[in-house]
Amino acid sequence: MIKAGIVGGTGYTGVELLRILAIHPEVEVACITSRSEAGIAVSDMYPNLRGYYELAFTEPDIDVLASCDLVFFATPHGVAMRMAPELLARGVRIVDLSADFRIKDLDVWARWYGMPHETAEWAEKAVYGLPEVARDAIRDARLVANPGCYPTAVQLGFLPLLENGLIRTGHLVADAKSGASGAGRQANVGMLHGEVGESFKAYGASGHRHLPEIRQGLELAAGGKVGISFVPHLVPMIRGIEATLYAELETPEDFDRLQSLYEGRFRDEPFVDVMPFGSHPETRSVRGENTCRMALHRQENSPVVIVTSVIDNLVKGAAGQAVQNMNIMFGLTEHAGLRAPALLP
Amino acid sequence: MIKAGIVGGTGYTGVELLRILAIHPEVEVACITSRSEAGIAVSDMYPNLRGYYELAFTEPDIDVLASCDLVFFATPHGVAMRMAPELLARGVRIVDLSADFRIKDLDVWARWYGMPHETAEWAEKAVYGLPEVARDAIRDARLVANPGCYPTAVQLGFLPLLENGLIRTGHLVADAKSGASGAGRQANVGMLHGEVGESFKAYGASGHRHLPEIRQGLELAAGGKVGISFVPHLVPMIRGIEATLYAELETPEDFDRLQSLYEGRFRDEPFVDVMPFGSHPETRSVRGENTCRMALHRQENSPVVIVTSVIDNLVKGAAGQAVQNMNIMFGLTEHAGLRAPALLP
Amino acid sequence: MIKAGIVGGTGYTGVELLRILAIHPEVEVACITSRSEAGIAVSDMYPNLRGYYELAFTEPDIDVLASCDLVFFATPHGVAMRMAPELLARGVRIVDLSADFRIKDLDVWARWYGMPHETAEWAEKAVYGLPEVARDAIRDARLVANPGCYPTAVQLGFLPLLENGLIRTGHLVADAKSGASGAGRQANVGMLHGEVGESFKAYGASGHRHLPEIRQGLELAAGGKVGISFVPHLVPMIRGIEATLYAELETPEDFDRLQSLYEGRFRDEPFVDVMPFGSHPETRSVRGENTCRMALHRQENSPVVIVTSVIDNLVKGAAGQAVQNMNIMFGLTEHAGLRAPALLP
Amino acid sequence: MIKAGIVGGTGYTGVELLRILAIHPEVEVACITSRSEAGIAVSDMYPNLRGYYELAFTEPDIDVLASCDLVFFATPHGVAMRMAPELLARGVRIVDLSADFRIKDLDVWARWYGMPHETAEWAEKAVYGLPEVARDAIRDARLVANPGCYPTAVQLGFLPLLENGLIRTGHLVADAKSGASGAGRQANVGMLHGEVGESFKAYGASGHRHLPEIRQGLELAAGGKVGISFVPHLVPMIRGIEATLYAELETPEDFDRLQSLYEGRFRDEPFVDVMPFGSHPETRSVRGENTCRMALHRQENSPVVIVTSVIDNLVKGAAGQAVQNMNIMFGLTEHAGLRAPALLP
Repeated sequence: MIKAGIVGGTGYTGVELLRILAIHPEVEVACITSRSEAGIAVSDMYPNLRGYYELAFTEPDIDVLASCDLVFFATPHGVAMRMAPELLARGVRIVDLSADFRIKDLDVWARWYGMPHETAEWAEKAVYGLPEVARDAIRDARLVANPGCYPTAVQLGFLPLLENGLIRTGHLVADAKSGASGAGRQANVGMLHGEVGESFKAYGASGHRHLPEIRQGLELAAGGKVGISFVPHLVPMIRGIEATLYAELETPEDFDRLQSLYEGRFRDEPFVDVMPFGSHPETRSVRGENTCRMALHRQENSPVVIVTSVIDNLVKGAAGQAVQNMNIMFGLTEHAGLRAPALLP
Repeated sequence: MIKAGIVGGTGYTGVELLRILAIHPEVEVACITSRSEAGIAVSDMYPNLRGYYELAFTEPDIDVLASCDLVFFATPHGVAMRMAPELLARGVRIVDLSADFRIKDLDVWARWYGMPHETAEWAEKAVYGLPEVARDAIRDARLVANPGCYPTAVQLGFLPLLENGLIRTGHLVADAKSGASGAGRQANVGMLHGEVGESFKAYGASGHRHLPEIRQGLELAAGGKVGISFVPHLVPMIRGIEATLYAELETPEDFDRLQSLYEGRFRDEPFVDVMPFGSHPETRSVRGENTCRMALHRQENSPVVIVTSVIDNLVKGAAGQAVQNMNIMFGLTEHAGLRAPALLP
Repeated sequence: MIKAGIVGGTGYTGVELLRILAIHPEVEVACITSRSEAGIAVSDMYPNLRGYYELAFTEPDIDVLASCDLVFFATPHGVAMRMAPELLARGVRIVDLSADFRIKDLDVWARWYGMPHETAEWAEKAVYGLPEVARDAIRDARLVANPGCYPTAVQLGFLPLLENGLIRTGHLVADAKSGASGAGRQANVGMLHGEVGESFKAYGASGHRHLPEIRQGLELAAGGKVGISFVPHLVPMIRGIEATLYAELETPEDFDRLQSLYEGRFRDEPFVDVMPFGSHPETRSVRGENTCRMALHRQENSPVVIVTSVIDNLVKGAAGQAVQNMNIMFGLTEHAGLRAPALLP
Repeated sequence: MIKAGIVGGTGYTGVELLRILAIHPEVEVACITSRSEAGIAVSDMYPNLRGYYELAFTEPDIDVLASCDLVFFATPHGVAMRMAPELLARGVRIVDLSADFRIKDLDVWARWYGMPHETAEWAEKAVYGLPEVARDAIRDARLVANPGCYPTAVQLGFLPLLENGLIRTGHLVADAKSGASGAGRQANVGMLHGEVGESFKAYGASGHRHLPEIRQGLELAAGGKVGISFVPHLVPMIRGIEATLYAELETPEDFDRLQSLYEGRFRDEPFVDVMPFGSHPETRSVRGENTCRMALHRQENSPVVIVTSVIDNLVKGAAGQAVQNMNIMFGLTEHAGLRAPALLP
């Protein structure tokens, strides 16, 4: 059994880790920390966990955490950056679900996250944990930077186009939509049901923290500069991200081979599902599941390829991908604890 | 492996059976029938099942069904009543999720369901499948009538009071609320999102088919007549039933022992959870799960005991309870295929 | 033109007053106060008001308020109680949308609102502003206590039964359901979309502040003691209250005349609509409108009369009723500013 | 008083016309037709209209309609095309809310709507009723083709850019999202609450009927060919459209003057509101109102201008714009019957 710790377990990402790990056959959750809720039983805060955990939230204790095989950070940015080095030094492996180790250019990181980065060494060593791109590196990683939710949906959708140099990279568009759980579980007037329900809006249209992360991943795949517009939107639902991606093919004739290209690229991926050309993936088809489901589209004779890509932001966009990374790191079946159909309807 | 067939698999109850059985360790779904969708792959209709089933819907074929160990009926009323006798004669065991075998008084059944009952023999032999009341009979049953969704939430909440003769039985109130999936997956203007969203209403306030089923169960527990008002309501959500139950205690002093009475009554039940006195169970705490979660309340010095009880109408209120019944019938662990925390948030 | 002031205008009740008064032909909003948002333009906070108001929120200034003909308090409890006496002394009339002057028994008030009442004189003089009961007194009132949302829906539904002594008053049940806007616009984890969406629950089942207010009104109508159980529930929608009321008729034969009794009682009421017997009023049918819509039901031969009653909690349950009261106080047409069909769908 | 008739009044567009016209000071609704609901009182079908209309739905009668000053068609495509010529010949003016007269190229129309066009003469004479573009022509029009919902939001957002030749027109993107009421009030499994709620998806990504209408409008404004990708999405809400528009500026320096250009373009428009640069318009800010609210955005130093534009699909996207057109045609104040703040929250 892998002994796992969770730092910062009271948010939606934390409870989702608990939900998934509750039935993972190879993992035991040894501790879960929360400064604000220390002493409270996990199942008092999250009644869906009644009968699954005896555990209570505790103050973070470095020795307890150091006794784990793996620690998940489900914290706001800035926390993992400070706590990770000691744990790593004591041999603990880490999957960081926050943004601390996702961006390689630390000036960019500092500008978007509003603080200097404090661990250049580990920022460099950290493996960006998108298994579809970096499975081998993840296997051996001591520190995995779990990707953001939008970046997961957007990168997976663009990858085959960029890796094969098929599109003009100067004017990509990623129009993305997320359910409200993406904003976390902080008291915030703007996220009240009375504010979010029955309404739709863009936000962060002049720049969102996931933009540099997306660009970094796309440029890596493209092997060069990429110009991308990324606008996130808030959907009056709880879970789910849909990204609609637009790119102009260099050679419109390539449309004929796109479908097989995508199917081939993801054939061996346990958590990417390419639907038939022209299908419309729904977020509910992945609710509670670790899959990214996508489809390709063309409008009349347009040279523009359109990709629609859906994930559950809390699963493939956060806790599920973290467990997938853990499975890879520890040599387990990649879908251990992650195989059950989405909740539909 | 138990070989299971499903008759009428295109509705929400059918797809929920498929979702649960997809990861059940002891069951193989051998066939799933649908007259309207014959030939369509299950996963084309329900993309959450992509990768879990190769199966396609087929025309109902009595010989194929007769080769199963168990057949689930997830059909409108009137179907199981006609098909069950032959299958039973050929040794197949049946869990009927429809209303055909729930009511013992066939005149009452005929009046509420608008047709004469055609199988008096099996209506008598059928076991009403509420495991918390009839586990032993279910174990040996050849035909189990799976309870309705409202009746499950309401009966479980009232049971300890009635079994112990603690309340005045002339004027009980069961005010129940359900998500829209309870109405099924038929084209119906009244169930459009544009009609159901952002609104709340009672329906069937002058009489609903679940009223005689509830009364039958309560009278069985009480050993006598029960007067109950039951009003269902439509909630703008998909899954979940909440029932708020009101009853006057014969002896208000009994309030002191109610909590321990409830805890004792359900201590060994794998799928009933009694929360601390005064808690407020939420439907989301059982979303996708087979649990009925409940709590007791008292207002000031009132003699009225209030019980709030929640289930997922598609799970403990339908497909999950059907699988629980199957597990009992075939001597499996009762929670086989049914143990995973609810999807929260 | 009536010169109106609003104290505490940033909550949902405040913005709803602004929405209604924006097109009221006889009212000019002279000032709107908010300590936290002073200096912010009303239309920057509420973009639906762009083009309707030049006004900005200001610090409360007693002299500015004293120059108004009428001041609305849309504040948490405890504020009006302290500010009202001076304004009243200076001749301003007041409609208080908070709970400060609703309860006549100040011990009861103090127990439920957790502070001593500071203005016994005005608590006595205040008129409880349910126009269907107290229109004449409202006309001459200097201080109107605008009823709570649940109490409006519940009292109107029970009134004809109690005024005519038709029911047993020892065991009434009011099972009520509200959209999330009823909880106001405060940062509160429990009211996040991620917490409220797609779920349903009871709350305050052991006692809610509206219980004594409801009881006071019902006992006034009954002319004696009333035993009532009141359980509020949270519906995953924004606006709307539905109350399902249960009472046992003393004489079941009275069922024959109930419908005409209700129709007669409310015939001249501009904002109460009695639907045909057995109808199911929906909250959306009153969304944004000042109407209370209700219907009567009977189940088989039961002696229990069931009333379903809906309002928009922010309109007839708060700001609309406040404007109705203002119209009465100032001798305007009672539906001035309040006549437009509900937004359906 | 203008005597108005409505053909096809049972859908969401029809009831929305009734809602708006109920309080229009210059219009009397003389008749409303529906083959399926003939004989039913309007307020029995739509209880929000109780107390506003005595009217019942009637079979369409050409003589009754011919006695009106104006007839609105709120019908599926193909109906107005056949009925309009006779009414026009008899002097009735028409606002057609369906798609019959929107597209000037009848081959294109026939291809997208699946039938030959039967009235080439009137298709040519019809005025495309976007007041912000064609106010003068509307004033004198006998037949106005009321624009589609998506085309209204998309055209208004792109207009200033195209009219001034500021953008590269080969690769525009319009990513649009709509509430479920856009699909109408037909029984349709795909639009059930159980299917639409808590999920998000693109649809029509390979081509939607509004694409040729959008392109026609944009090319008119641009004075030349426009290449546009248009993907509609379904949002789990009832009302509202948001369109996020992307276009590359020919000269990025033009960013400096875009805001004033937009403000100037729409300064005198009663129903277009340009918010400050970088704002995020929400659909709820126009719920129930006839406004199109928009804002401009730029990401870092990108040459791409992003426009976010919101409308209520049933108001500015249908019935409200129809009434605006009627007001213009009959020389009324343009906002007659249309001035009341949106319902927020």
